[in-house]
Amino acid sequence: MLCLKMPTDGGWAMAAARDANAILVDHAHCEMKAATNALSLAMRHSGDLDLVLALSALAREEIEHFGRVVAVLAERGVALGPPKVDEYAAELRRATAALPRSSVPPLVDRLLVGALIEARSCERFQLLAAATDDEDLRALWTDLLASEARHYRTFVDLAVRAAGGDRARVVARLDDLASLEGAIVTRLAEQGAEFPRASIHG
Amino acid sequence: MLCLKMPTDGGWAMAAARDANAILVDHAHCEMKAATNALSLAMRHSGDLDLVLALSALAREEIEHFGRVVAVLAERGVALGPPKVDEYAAELRRATAALPRSSVPPLVDRLLVGALIEARSCERFQLLAAATDDEDLRALWTDLLASEARHYRTFVDLAVRAAGGDRARVVARLDDLASLEGAIVTRLAEQGAEFPRASIHG
Repeated sequence: MLCLKMPTDGGWAMAAARDANAILVDHAHCEMKAATNALSLAMRHSGDLDLVLALSALAREEIEHFGRVVAVLAERGVALGPPKVDEYAAELRRATAALPRSSVPPLVDRLLVGALIEARSCERFQLLAAATDDEDLRALWTDLLASEARHYRTFVDLAVRAAGGDRARVVARLDDLASLEGAIVTRLAEQGAEFPRASIHG
Repeated sequence: MLCLKMPTDGGWAMAAARDANAILVDHAHCEMKAATNALSLAMRHSGDLDLVLALSALAREEIEHFGRVVAVLAERGVALGPPKVDEYAAELRRATAALPRSSVPPLVDRLLVGALIEARSCERFQLLAAATDDEDLRALWTDLLASEARHYRTFVDLAVRAAGGDRARVVARLDDLASLEGAIVTRLAEQGAEFPRASIHG
């Protein structure tokens, strides 16, 4: 699946499909965090208008999905609740920052972390779509996974651009970060950190 | 103009029309701040799904306008630059927080501050549209002012809802906050704080 090194454990989708409300709540927050991260990254690089436009368009789409998921929660009578700390994303950022400095600018790493998060969500929505009996939810998961795949590509393309067009260097760096990501996903699964804190990406 | 107590000084529009690039840069940042404020307010009230949906829809529209203004900057070859502290909004929040506690919940005040900021932008875009010779810019300002007027009404309606439907109480509170806002606008204009830090709302 895209650049990922470790597949999600087979049991994840079965457990997640049984607890669709938790996945919906978690995913609403994931979309919101993705939107606010994209906006803050855009404003940190306000000198680069193409990057700013691409990231703000991405954020708009994330907010649209957030609204869509929240509307489903409202229909189901499920509360959203406050956002929780996203251990997966936090660990991925920490592990990336702790890597030896590479020859790529820090912006490339931030964009590749975004790409990996999207890739993992995409992989999990695919598992979830296959595991669910609810047609409406399957349609929602399928729509969302298509967007996550697009966002993955957007992040990788922006990273290549930020690396001065050197795709080979970005692919090599993505490979390093994907190894970190696989280790984090495996560790979180072993710690049983995923349920009840079901997360679509971590 | 809507609920405002003090009209913007007549000289503002002439100076602003001569420096359209500064207004565009300022307004791009205003839209971005409005979007991130709406999202943070939504997440602070994640228990209220209708509020969350209304604020996230608002944020989406602000990001769309942000993108539209940034695209105009890109066409004109003007840099966006980093965001500046928004003295007007900061003072309005401070002054509101320093008021004696009213019988309205704090959320009502936050929404009414949002309403006032939108109202002021709307008033100024109207002055600017009348003062500009550039047809494309006039069309942009006119579109934006219509949205600001809509957002003003959205914020007031959300405030009425947050006050349990008591519109009279909200109108009275808005009147108090509008007096603060008028004093802040007057003071900033006297201090000459508005140019070169041209702001569409402060």
